[in-house]
Amino acid sequence: MIVVLKRDISKSELEQLQQKLQKAGCEFQLFEDGESILRIKSKQNWLSVDFFLSQPGVQNAYRITPPYQLSARKSPEQETHIHVGEYVFGPSQFTLIAGPCAVESEEQILATAQALSGNGIRFLRGGAFKPRTSPYAFQGLGIEGLQLLRKAADQFKMKVVTEAVSSADVSVVAEHADIVQIGTRNMQNFQLLKKVGKQKKPVLLKRGMNATIEEFLLASEYILQEGNSQVILCERGIRTFETSTRNTLDISAVPIIKQLSHLPIFVDPSHASGKRNLILPLSRAALAAGADGLLIEVHHQAEVAKSDGPQSINFAAFEELLSSLKAMAPLLNKQIY
Amino acid sequence: MIVVLKRDISKSELEQLQQKLQKAGCEFQLFEDGESILRIKSKQNWLSVDFFLSQPGVQNAYRITPPYQLSARKSPEQETHIHVGEYVFGPSQFTLIAGPCAVESEEQILATAQALSGNGIRFLRGGAFKPRTSPYAFQGLGIEGLQLLRKAADQFKMKVVTEAVSSADVSVVAEHADIVQIGTRNMQNFQLLKKVGKQKKPVLLKRGMNATIEEFLLASEYILQEGNSQVILCERGIRTFETSTRNTLDISAVPIIKQLSHLPIFVDPSHASGKRNLILPLSRAALAAGADGLLIEVHHQAEVAKSDGPQSINFAAFEELLSSLKAMAPLLNKQIY
Amino acid sequence: MIVVLKRDISKSELEQLQQKLQKAGCEFQLFEDGESILRIKSKQNWLSVDFFLSQPGVQNAYRITPPYQLSARKSPEQETHIHVGEYVFGPSQFTLIAGPCAVESEEQILATAQALSGNGIRFLRGGAFKPRTSPYAFQGLGIEGLQLLRKAADQFKMKVVTEAVSSADVSVVAEHADIVQIGTRNMQNFQLLKKVGKQKKPVLLKRGMNATIEEFLLASEYILQEGNSQVILCERGIRTFETSTRNTLDISAVPIIKQLSHLPIFVDPSHASGKRNLILPLSRAALAAGADGLLIEVHHQAEVAKSDGPQSINFAAFEELLSSLKAMAPLLNKQIY
Amino acid sequence: MIVVLKRDISKSELEQLQQKLQKAGCEFQLFEDGESILRIKSKQNWLSVDFFLSQPGVQNAYRITPPYQLSARKSPEQETHIHVGEYVFGPSQFTLIAGPCAVESEEQILATAQALSGNGIRFLRGGAFKPRTSPYAFQGLGIEGLQLLRKAADQFKMKVVTEAVSSADVSVVAEHADIVQIGTRNMQNFQLLKKVGKQKKPVLLKRGMNATIEEFLLASEYILQEGNSQVILCERGIRTFETSTRNTLDISAVPIIKQLSHLPIFVDPSHASGKRNLILPLSRAALAAGADGLLIEVHHQAEVAKSDGPQSINFAAFEELLSSLKAMAPLLNKQIY
Repeated sequence: MIVVLKRDISKSELEQLQQKLQKAGCEFQLFEDGESILRIKSKQNWLSVDFFLSQPGVQNAYRITPPYQLSARKSPEQETHIHVGEYVFGPSQFTLIAGPCAVESEEQILATAQALSGNGIRFLRGGAFKPRTSPYAFQGLGIEGLQLLRKAADQFKMKVVTEAVSSADVSVVAEHADIVQIGTRNMQNFQLLKKVGKQKKPVLLKRGMNATIEEFLLASEYILQEGNSQVILCERGIRTFETSTRNTLDISAVPIIKQLSHLPIFVDPSHASGKRNLILPLSRAALAAGADGLLIEVHHQAEVAKSDGPQSINFAAFEELLSSLKAMAPLLNKQIY
Repeated sequence: MIVVLKRDISKSELEQLQQKLQKAGCEFQLFEDGESILRIKSKQNWLSVDFFLSQPGVQNAYRITPPYQLSARKSPEQETHIHVGEYVFGPSQFTLIAGPCAVESEEQILATAQALSGNGIRFLRGGAFKPRTSPYAFQGLGIEGLQLLRKAADQFKMKVVTEAVSSADVSVVAEHADIVQIGTRNMQNFQLLKKVGKQKKPVLLKRGMNATIEEFLLASEYILQEGNSQVILCERGIRTFETSTRNTLDISAVPIIKQLSHLPIFVDPSHASGKRNLILPLSRAALAAGADGLLIEVHHQAEVAKSDGPQSINFAAFEELLSSLKAMAPLLNKQIY
Repeated sequence: MIVVLKRDISKSELEQLQQKLQKAGCEFQLFEDGESILRIKSKQNWLSVDFFLSQPGVQNAYRITPPYQLSARKSPEQETHIHVGEYVFGPSQFTLIAGPCAVESEEQILATAQALSGNGIRFLRGGAFKPRTSPYAFQGLGIEGLQLLRKAADQFKMKVVTEAVSSADVSVVAEHADIVQIGTRNMQNFQLLKKVGKQKKPVLLKRGMNATIEEFLLASEYILQEGNSQVILCERGIRTFETSTRNTLDISAVPIIKQLSHLPIFVDPSHASGKRNLILPLSRAALAAGADGLLIEVHHQAEVAKSDGPQSINFAAFEELLSSLKAMAPLLNKQIY
Repeated sequence: MIVVLKRDISKSELEQLQQKLQKAGCEFQLFEDGESILRIKSKQNWLSVDFFLSQPGVQNAYRITPPYQLSARKSPEQETHIHVGEYVFGPSQFTLIAGPCAVESEEQILATAQALSGNGIRFLRGGAFKPRTSPYAFQGLGIEGLQLLRKAADQFKMKVVTEAVSSADVSVVAEHADIVQIGTRNMQNFQLLKKVGKQKKPVLLKRGMNATIEEFLLASEYILQEGNSQVILCERGIRTFETSTRNTLDISAVPIIKQLSHLPIFVDPSHASGKRNLILPLSRAALAAGADGLLIEVHHQAEVAKSDGPQSINFAAFEELLSSLKAMAPLLNKQIY
């Protein structure tokens, strides 16, 4: 932390500030030279930028080390590999997690699992608990949805990825799922983050649509701190003024997160764009930018989907997408499944 | 809902669409004229814009009635008045809810309650459970904080406003507080909204920093639907590209919400701006724009506040603010307390 | 400027950096202490943050003095007063500049000038050259519009405020107008800024809808640098994700600009909101936040306006607005005209 | 255009509206059915959404055809091919335009041209007239810069792409350049757009950092309308709340513009990100998303660049990038040069 003091800081203001820091056991050094600079050395995490901005005589404060710690990359080689059964998520893979927005019926989820697994896809997604902007929209099948998902996955030797929307659901979701998803609206539901941090299944954490990358990594820190180191990050679009897509896919977040963190980073082109005819080019772009996988909405009859129909692709479109990604993956030193 | 069909919609696509609507018991009328228009009349809430955009042959769909219902203003006279003890929130009042960001100690909260109540303020705020971006920041005193808040309020005949951050906390918060606050990061924590909708204390719902006004009203709908009609809305700044304030206070949201809804609308200038020297002008602006009250951070020693120090004002600044608002209130036909 | 060096900066990288700075005649001081800090003292304006970020061994650079100079407030007392004939713009006034979005006909502009001047308004606005998003929209009457505006203003002893949209128009606009307006889309049309900086009429500079406050003040600097110190700033809404208003009025910009600069700051509630039923509350809010005046669209028949009809108010609404502002102005120590 | 009338529209309001439309020679049809709908059939461009929103008795108006015309794609096959000497821009190419942000010296631009042309690059970029946020920043060498650029390009058989920042510069820029660039801050400088529309050299139009895709296409329309059909669009990042990149590259704009328009669409990863270590992944993503080329900042000594140093890559990084793109291009059916 670097703290720039005001030119007109009084002697007593400076003394009081130094006393507070000493009392807190904080190491610091004062450089005097016209404008004075205080260099804070000890990593006392409560010493925030806000703390210094609140002190009389302080002009500004700059944090020079990132506020997140466990999620921060310490070396170019550091990489988190996440193991789910015989499968691995990480920098040498490009993993596809596919399925409907919501589990709607046994027929639907079985047909989807069959089609996907027939194409070599090993991760089946589907919402059982659905967080919806309107209370009048379809809210998901709940536990029945979880059971259908598990059954379909088991029948076709797939793994289940599904969302927990409240702390109360975490254990039942973790029981049925192989990976527990945290949605964009819950990225700063800190109680929920702590709860999934305390259980053992890997967590797929979606970026808040209004969250900076720094806040995204801080959110992952809530999970890591509780002892669960199996976190997969997922960029899914941020909110901007542009209205031709539902959100704006922040493709730059992929290489930035690769540089800042050792965690795998996925992309969800379906929620980012809200439009099925953008899924193919955005999926390619995600792979090309270095993402470690995709979360894609696939529906056996997209035109009757109970939610997110406009952004779901059908099986034929999914096969075309897969074939395109398979051709590109070797150039990025990635293996697809 | 108005649905515009593609010029090249096939006869069978149109027939299938009509059959689906009939099967769903939905009233509609087809206007044919070069481009065909389908006018959907029945208010089946599952018939979303998304549903129509997913159908083959549909070009676009426009919702022409708002998606929220209980929070929508039905007439110019309709106004929700919220009663807390002998006090009322509503269009003839301008109510100040003041206090520290976080309850830190008995000394702090008692000093604050004494100073505020001495100025005629009846609503004491303070965080016991603090949602913090970083897991390393101060997270609040928890239940002890609630107890200190209650004790201070009781001693000075004040009412308590404090935040619940998870479903599990709702009952203990509701037990100690007179108004339960839902914070910006939880505006779309739908489980939490339902939970506070099921208890009886009034709810102060803060706008999500990335939420549109429509989404804000839909969030309130989750509470109203559960039977709790005592909802106070609170604008607290939205996230934009401007960095000289923490968020951008959307002052226009005040008159817009007055036009769209019958619920009271408050403003939180402290979180919107993040800067104490903006509190006075923004508070005046809120009153002038028609807000029904303010949520303000006041700290007896702002420079040592454990959170939000830079935006907290001290007692002297609060008195100056109050005096300025009292002079202005009669012009807006508002009574201040 | 404070420059933080990388922990692993090599000796030769550091020497090269110091040599570059010495060669450029730049004063600096090196503080060494684990992480090294370079404090740059001389105000060489080409030494940008970008320059330092480009150097090997540099981790980050922080500008600690604002990049604008002439527009920066040097003391609490420093205030620019702008004189237009017998009228003054400044901190003791609240000046209304009103009129139609575009000059459409002699009848229209005369009727408007008569109604406004009858209410004591002294500044008539109206567009002759209109920058329009679509080439198919009405582009204004050009020089004929300027002449009609001048004629109407002269007949009713008013002053003219109108926009120049290109360098080529500046002299003809300055000839007919008393204040030359620069629109939001031209805030960074630097050639145009320099051109209006070289003529003598006061300039009303509107904030770019995507400009930060710092960029806004830097744009004013282009005018001030050319010798024209008569600049009035105008906040007119920024672009955000919210769609219920055309743009989001950044009301906080008013007190912030008051703190950072000595230039007068106006508000344009018409363009900010795009909705006539928001003009009254937003105008009041602007006054309450400390603005020095308003730019308001008034049309004698708003429903047939050739541009910006939805946000124009009619004469009756204008009179109601004026009466409300007059009641409030004394509380802000402002005189209205 | 579809116009929804208010339920309580009066008979006389409706009659007046119909009369206005008839008088304007506008074809329309009224559908009555509880809520009435007016379907406007004639393409009178002055009939904007704003016109209808200004009429008494109108609730809302929806444009159902895009407001741009010449830039709109009329069929899947329609593609604009732009010829510059023996080179073509279009859907089968992926064209690299590279060079320094600003022309700084003969040595610099010759070294750059030599290195780039040695790698097969045919388009040399460099700014002679620089629009800068601060008046104190380097503003470019002007005409001397144009001459150096031309000389370097001619010596190495390259084509010149450079920016015109004001109408007055257009002819001298067009004289020296092969493609005239319009920068992001000038995307809505309509006088400048018309001026480059009147000359014959192809135009590279960069998206305004705050412009929607619709506004971007409308801006291109100003050029096309004047008779110049040789327009290349360029996505260069939009302004959002995220601060880890200078702007947010809107990668989705690439496939959307491909669907809406027949014009080529480029990507500028340098300005979008502001960071040289993002250029490689974002360039790959642009190609993968279907872009027709790139605009890239390359500097022979990035650490001493007079502008945009942090985002410029050196020759070695450029060669690595080129090699990566060459491997990927065949998968997208693109030829690179």
